[in-house]
Amino acid sequence: MVSRLAIVGTGLIGASVALAARRAGVASVRGFDPDPDALAEAAQGGAVEPAGSLSEAVANAELAVVAAPVAQLSSSVAEVLAASSGTVTDVGSTKGAVARAVRDDARFIGGHPVCGSEARGAANARAELFEGATWFLTPGAATEPARYRELHAFVSSLGAVPVAVDPEAHDRLVALTSHLPHALANLLVNQAGAARIEGHEPLAAAGGSLRDLTRVAGANPRIWVDIFLDNASALRETLREHRRRIEQLEAALEAGDAGFLARWIAEASGNRRRMLAEAFEDPGALQRLRVHVPDRPGVLAGITQALGAERINIEDFELQHFSPERGGVLNVLVTGEEPARRAAELLEAQGYGVVVSAVVE
Amino acid sequence: MVSRLAIVGTGLIGASVALAARRAGVASVRGFDPDPDALAEAAQGGAVEPAGSLSEAVANAELAVVAAPVAQLSSSVAEVLAASSGTVTDVGSTKGAVARAVRDDARFIGGHPVCGSEARGAANARAELFEGATWFLTPGAATEPARYRELHAFVSSLGAVPVAVDPEAHDRLVALTSHLPHALANLLVNQAGAARIEGHEPLAAAGGSLRDLTRVAGANPRIWVDIFLDNASALRETLREHRRRIEQLEAALEAGDAGFLARWIAEASGNRRRMLAEAFEDPGALQRLRVHVPDRPGVLAGITQALGAERINIEDFELQHFSPERGGVLNVLVTGEEPARRAAELLEAQGYGVVVSAVVE
Repeated sequence: MVSRLAIVGTGLIGASVALAARRAGVASVRGFDPDPDALAEAAQGGAVEPAGSLSEAVANAELAVVAAPVAQLSSSVAEVLAASSGTVTDVGSTKGAVARAVRDDARFIGGHPVCGSEARGAANARAELFEGATWFLTPGAATEPARYRELHAFVSSLGAVPVAVDPEAHDRLVALTSHLPHALANLLVNQAGAARIEGHEPLAAAGGSLRDLTRVAGANPRIWVDIFLDNASALRETLREHRRRIEQLEAALEAGDAGFLARWIAEASGNRRRMLAEAFEDPGALQRLRVHVPDRPGVLAGITQALGAERINIEDFELQHFSPERGGVLNVLVTGEEPARRAAELLEAQGYGVVVSAVVE
Repeated sequence: MVSRLAIVGTGLIGASVALAARRAGVASVRGFDPDPDALAEAAQGGAVEPAGSLSEAVANAELAVVAAPVAQLSSSVAEVLAASSGTVTDVGSTKGAVARAVRDDARFIGGHPVCGSEARGAANARAELFEGATWFLTPGAATEPARYRELHAFVSSLGAVPVAVDPEAHDRLVALTSHLPHALANLLVNQAGAARIEGHEPLAAAGGSLRDLTRVAGANPRIWVDIFLDNASALRETLREHRRRIEQLEAALEAGDAGFLARWIAEASGNRRRMLAEAFEDPGALQRLRVHVPDRPGVLAGITQALGAERINIEDFELQHFSPERGGVLNVLVTGEEPARRAAELLEAQGYGVVVSAVVE
């Protein structure tokens, strides 16, 4: 159990690690940030005791967490390893470059909490940030098992779910699960934004699918330029493969190959079901209730209250906002046809029109 | 004002048009479907008076709505035009093929309500299905203005927002705003599903971005194979352009061109803001509250109730479900920093950790 923790880099993630660690019972949390304002903000919020220098922060720490931007990660980690004698980890979004830079130091284990927050600064830090989140750990060949076990326990104590993976495999994994989706979102919204079709602006005619696919478009360039460049090689690999798959689809469309399209959609349906299986116990039983709602306060409360009172668990919940005048569509996911039917009846009794369908065909 | 309406094809959309028309005061709604069970279902639900034949249904109708599958659309519309003397429209997802097939008949005006429901069958039909939805109308050069005005008024009376567009332009528009996003969702989930990275399954490591981008993957193959084939030419055009943009990104990554990436992300951010401007009055003022919630009934009710009671309007609402054990993250969008701050305080008083950030940087 860690009792003396150091945080190097006291922005949103660093300060949230500090708060979560305090909540988990870590006695001493010292912090340092090259930016005095960032350090003061974290100290004021009660996340860390501020140290006068990096050395002072890490000298006696059993564990030092480096929460520096991706571009400064390797040099910061090297500096902390030199100034400390305990275990060192980081929270960067890519893991290959820093692993190569420290060349299998026995005290370093890379880390990457997948918490997807877009906020910044210690003022937004929260102890709850990592609850339920996957936290990748990338032990190397030289990593001492005791240090890995200690870090694993520490990450778990913050509420996260540690997952061990090789650093280079980590980068290929996130290239596919995060960097490619972000890149495609940017590509798609820019393609739609650049087009004018006989006076119609595609962005103005965007339906739910274009909105879904571009939700992460335009994410913070201060973070994402570095992530894309740092993981350029793995990302390029996934982009090449994506182009190959597009060409295959184009050929099927040109040939009018209905069989290919049917198999391709069925494969997508199966893959989506597998993905949902991670989040839901029985994705095949999921039912979607599609409810048209006006745009005014209290409407969502009325709906969630009615379902909660009947002990109908809302598995997922999404409001597709049309406009202040036109209202929106609420998609409510519940498990099982019988609860879905009861939920629809309840909402219809409140005057809403409800359409029920299975989530996975 | 239409007083005698005919519905040809009494599935979900046809029967919903019938119910919405009745609600709007249309006196007579006759229906026909080549499938006797589908017709009986719509008649039983009170949507239509069943007719014994297509001719009987449409003979005296001022307006006939053809709600046939895309593959049978052109032949059904031709049959209805031959059997009737009133205005004829349809509700198909593509408009070019049917417009070419009827060769500018003065009585035909194509239509496409964008209501995005995945349910099927008259049993799921609802009068509210079209409320707030865009309903494309594709008048041709030969269309009589009085018929167009009448159809425009009819569609508005169902609660939809009619938007006039040329049939071929419509197909290029939906290729970009709907068919390309659906294709990319299928391509992406199949690419992630086919990969194994040193024993790790990318679908199991899916974060929020992969989930967002594949939400529409695997959509009903009975509908989508026909849509993709019917609009193959326009879709192939958007896929080629998408590949060109991917190559451009690959080149920038290979060159380590940070300037390109920064401009590209900024462009995406601007385009996303323009897209949101359609749905929100002031997208720049939108604030996201990120709240970690356990997976149990009543939690969402407590949150929406607390905000509703304080007259804080929820602009958008999405639950990112982790798992039954790990709970999920709730993203709540509100307008303005002050309401966001009040909302965060309210939820923190209920014991939730809340992180606030601007939606558009």
